[in-house]
Amino acid sequence: MIKVAVNGYNVIGRRVADAVAAQSDMRLVGVSKVKPDYKARGALERGYRLYALDEKTRKSFSDAGIPTEGTVMDLVEQADIVIDCTPEDAGAENKSIYERQGKKAIFQGGEEHSIAELSFVAQCNFEKANGKKFVRVVSCNTTALCRLLHSIDESFSISKARVVIARRAADPDEVGKGPIDAVVLDPISVPSHHGPDVNTVLPGFPVISMALKIPTTHMHLHSLMISSRKQASAADVIQKLELTPRILLVDGKRDGFKSTANIIDMARDMRRPRNDLYEAVVWRDSVRVIDGEIYLFMAVHQEAIVIPENIDAVRAITSTCGREESMMMTDKSLGILGKKL
Amino acid sequence: MIKVAVNGYNVIGRRVADAVAAQSDMRLVGVSKVKPDYKARGALERGYRLYALDEKTRKSFSDAGIPTEGTVMDLVEQADIVIDCTPEDAGAENKSIYERQGKKAIFQGGEEHSIAELSFVAQCNFEKANGKKFVRVVSCNTTALCRLLHSIDESFSISKARVVIARRAADPDEVGKGPIDAVVLDPISVPSHHGPDVNTVLPGFPVISMALKIPTTHMHLHSLMISSRKQASAADVIQKLELTPRILLVDGKRDGFKSTANIIDMARDMRRPRNDLYEAVVWRDSVRVIDGEIYLFMAVHQEAIVIPENIDAVRAITSTCGREESMMMTDKSLGILGKKL
Repeated sequence: MIKVAVNGYNVIGRRVADAVAAQSDMRLVGVSKVKPDYKARGALERGYRLYALDEKTRKSFSDAGIPTEGTVMDLVEQADIVIDCTPEDAGAENKSIYERQGKKAIFQGGEEHSIAELSFVAQCNFEKANGKKFVRVVSCNTTALCRLLHSIDESFSISKARVVIARRAADPDEVGKGPIDAVVLDPISVPSHHGPDVNTVLPGFPVISMALKIPTTHMHLHSLMISSRKQASAADVIQKLELTPRILLVDGKRDGFKSTANIIDMARDMRRPRNDLYEAVVWRDSVRVIDGEIYLFMAVHQEAIVIPENIDAVRAITSTCGREESMMMTDKSLGILGKKL
Repeated sequence: MIKVAVNGYNVIGRRVADAVAAQSDMRLVGVSKVKPDYKARGALERGYRLYALDEKTRKSFSDAGIPTEGTVMDLVEQADIVIDCTPEDAGAENKSIYERQGKKAIFQGGEEHSIAELSFVAQCNFEKANGKKFVRVVSCNTTALCRLLHSIDESFSISKARVVIARRAADPDEVGKGPIDAVVLDPISVPSHHGPDVNTVLPGFPVISMALKIPTTHMHLHSLMISSRKQASAADVIQKLELTPRILLVDGKRDGFKSTANIIDMARDMRRPRNDLYEAVVWRDSVRVIDGEIYLFMAVHQEAIVIPENIDAVRAITSTCGREESMMMTDKSLGILGKKL
């Protein structure tokens, strides 16, 4: 049993904790949280051992009537490996704690590539994580792009990939974030960080990304334009994607998936916990090849897509099993669909 | 004096009527409307002669206390030329009226290319409209793309243009339209109609477009990726665009134009009527050339951008003056900026 601590219990941490708890080869030793809010109560209701940031924070938990087992330091001590789900840029500071305590750790995509020895996407570079001390699971958009582009590159040899990412501006619970009625260039300059970030995992071809922030909460939407060296037909691309792990193909016109809202509604209908879609979703009927260039739309559930990667990263970094076995265990535990809709 | 009738008085019609009224060589003979609402009262307050759709509709206007001068038939009779601003697909039916009465007419981009003898963008093909009976001003997105691509093609010879269009889902007054919290693929299939529509004006190079509908009301946002035969630097592209009519360059970082909301706020600050931006807006600091491909962001005020084209189309179709003279008169009357910000 791999003893796993989850440091940070918000959007990603809550999902990672549930996923760890669902693995037969892992034990969730506890989760840490800064604020004694409804999310902390939810952790207790699930039976997770709760740790506060520090002694001062512990007091605010006990004042709120929420018992804690100790501080982050105590939590880390009990683990073989820490999954760091703290807010963007906090991971770098935490790293020194993990180093001091001699623990392996997995960081999220909000951190710099340089925080870890490897930027990780299970189906792209699982084996390279073996024996590493620190691994970074890349961000939601990068994870989806890596899954898709790695697969298309395998079959059709990508010469250049271009993507415009329409980013959901806030997660559903982030009531203070905007915009309400505007498109924000995020950033104004080209490329956005996403393309270069894909190249930390897949260095073989240029990926040029442009990113917008728009008033939605549910999913990111990617418009892809991919040049390949080998001629592909739309049918070839679809066939390849049908065989690609953690990519879900949907038929927009036939089945009424007109928008990201329909995709999330499907996830709710599937009774996925928190309507989580761990799969990148590609519209089958958007796939088109024109003058040798591949076009398609892909949607990314920003809250969920990196969860399976975090679980696989635990096994990869602790060298407890191989890629296929790990991905199969992860997918089965999370209800990830093997066959396509 | 060219006698101009404006058939349809909603988003485009209201602006076209004001623009016609502002021309020294045109006389607005009247405007037509279907519903006796606040927009109809606004027309009267401006002193425009108001016409109802038919006798039955006239009754609803008089019931509402709004006097009309007659029906659309009466309006058309008094004009040399009709600018048809009726809703999408209504133009085709109206065409038979204009034909019967022997009037020239200008249609909007919601109609099919085949409704007219020419799809028109002033700076691209003004001269071709001379002597034509029916001309179609292309839609807002197509107009902006034509201005930009025509200019870049002149200097750098475009081999392929790709664009992802994030479309505002509703105009500010359209309270019944969605989505509220989703990205709608519009359409799911690739390409959207915009690329082929650009080719009705600029047939020389492929334009592949992908389009999304998003929860905003103010502007469309274009992410462009343009391959050219002649090598261009970002500075070359910017210099060319600085000299291109009806394109406004803004400096995002320097001047705080982070989003479409900032652009529209600037238009309000400029005291433009109804915050109208007749210019396509390009972020100067988004222009980038990577591996010989040109990238940039462009925003399009969907309610306003086609207004100058409608005015120029009147002069082109009636052969009353040349392109440069017409565009200069139009720009001066509408306060379109000659120099760049």
